[in-house]
Amino acid sequence: MARTALMPAKRKPKADTSARDVKGEISAYKRRLILEEACHLFYAHGYEGTTLDAIAERLNVTKPFIYSYHRNKAEILREISERGIRLCLAALDEVRSNGGTPLAQLKAIVDRVTTLILENQEYIVVYQREEKNLEPATARDIRRLRKMFDTRLEALLDEGVASGEFDIEDTGFAAISISGLMSWTANWFQPGGRRPASEVIVQTLKMVTHMVAAPK
Amino acid sequence: MARTALMPAKRKPKADTSARDVKGEISAYKRRLILEEACHLFYAHGYEGTTLDAIAERLNVTKPFIYSYHRNKAEILREISERGIRLCLAALDEVRSNGGTPLAQLKAIVDRVTTLILENQEYIVVYQREEKNLEPATARDIRRLRKMFDTRLEALLDEGVASGEFDIEDTGFAAISISGLMSWTANWFQPGGRRPASEVIVQTLKMVTHMVAAPK
Repeated sequence: MARTALMPAKRKPKADTSARDVKGEISAYKRRLILEEACHLFYAHGYEGTTLDAIAERLNVTKPFIYSYHRNKAEILREISERGIRLCLAALDEVRSNGGTPLAQLKAIVDRVTTLILENQEYIVVYQREEKNLEPATARDIRRLRKMFDTRLEALLDEGVASGEFDIEDTGFAAISISGLMSWTANWFQPGGRRPASEVIVQTLKMVTHMVAAPK
Repeated sequence: MARTALMPAKRKPKADTSARDVKGEISAYKRRLILEEACHLFYAHGYEGTTLDAIAERLNVTKPFIYSYHRNKAEILREISERGIRLCLAALDEVRSNGGTPLAQLKAIVDRVTTLILENQEYIVVYQREEKNLEPATARDIRRLRKMFDTRLEALLDEGVASGEFDIEDTGFAAISISGLMSWTANWFQPGGRRPASEVIVQTLKMVTHMVAAPK
């Protein structure tokens, strides 16, 4: 039962709407609410400065309620830290599987990934700040996912160099730089500030395109 | 006397080598040693996880010794956090005052600033991670210095657009992106790793040049 509740998507075909796993959906929703609130508190007061009691208080729930969804504070930090890179990797993989020219794929990736980074800004920043508070094995796992993102982006850049669309001397370095440009937006973007998210996305797209495009 | 020791450069003409302020130099050296060790411990264990006792122990000195050079732990964090941006701003200003074409100036800035960022990697990372532990007024001051860096870089980019060397739609955004690309190296550079610092600098230079250069 617990397995079904935690992993409904794997056990049911998508079209089967007559048997929605409402319990599973609610459970996932509650997990997400706890993560969101915890992330917000870690962002404002730091991981070490935030207790599970404070998270429970903000959610108006008991601490045992939190424990029924997350084993401990370290696990909450792990889930927060993984979230950004997991979403970005999934977006990259989906764009890659849809095909298209390397330039079209790169543009779609930058658009979707920058959007995800701005939408999950606090998650990304908390990960960047609190990486040292992750268990070493977890920190390594997440670094591995980030490396995977860069390596897959590098493969796309290689395809674009081969097709003549891109002019890049070191595609590995370019991949790290593009990831960096996108990630950096989380450090300076201000919701409600002078540059709306849509403009940040469009301008990042132009910067990246300019950075890799072969002269016409 | 204390003023002389702390600010020797302001009180003596540069050419006067016959009267070196050795006391002042030693004092500055000791301040620097404390900062370096504190930065190293903040980097490894976090600001909150590091006591002044631990810093004193690592330096094999007493806590009063540290207090005679820094008021408290918060002041040490402020000095660590300011260091990177102060050095980068000074490098930018020096390059600007030396003159040259906008492209030559931009290349000199990227070269020098990326070098400074890699040399002061732990200082930059500690600032990025621990910004929330700075006093609000200090955090604002440092953000103002960073903004100043970007604004001065933007002015250079504007000159390059006017001269036809650069092809940039939004020079403000390009300045933030270039700062971001350079700062990002502090997050992934590994001393002794696969890419030596010299290569990171050369490749960053190429990325930035490609990003802003007008098509030939």
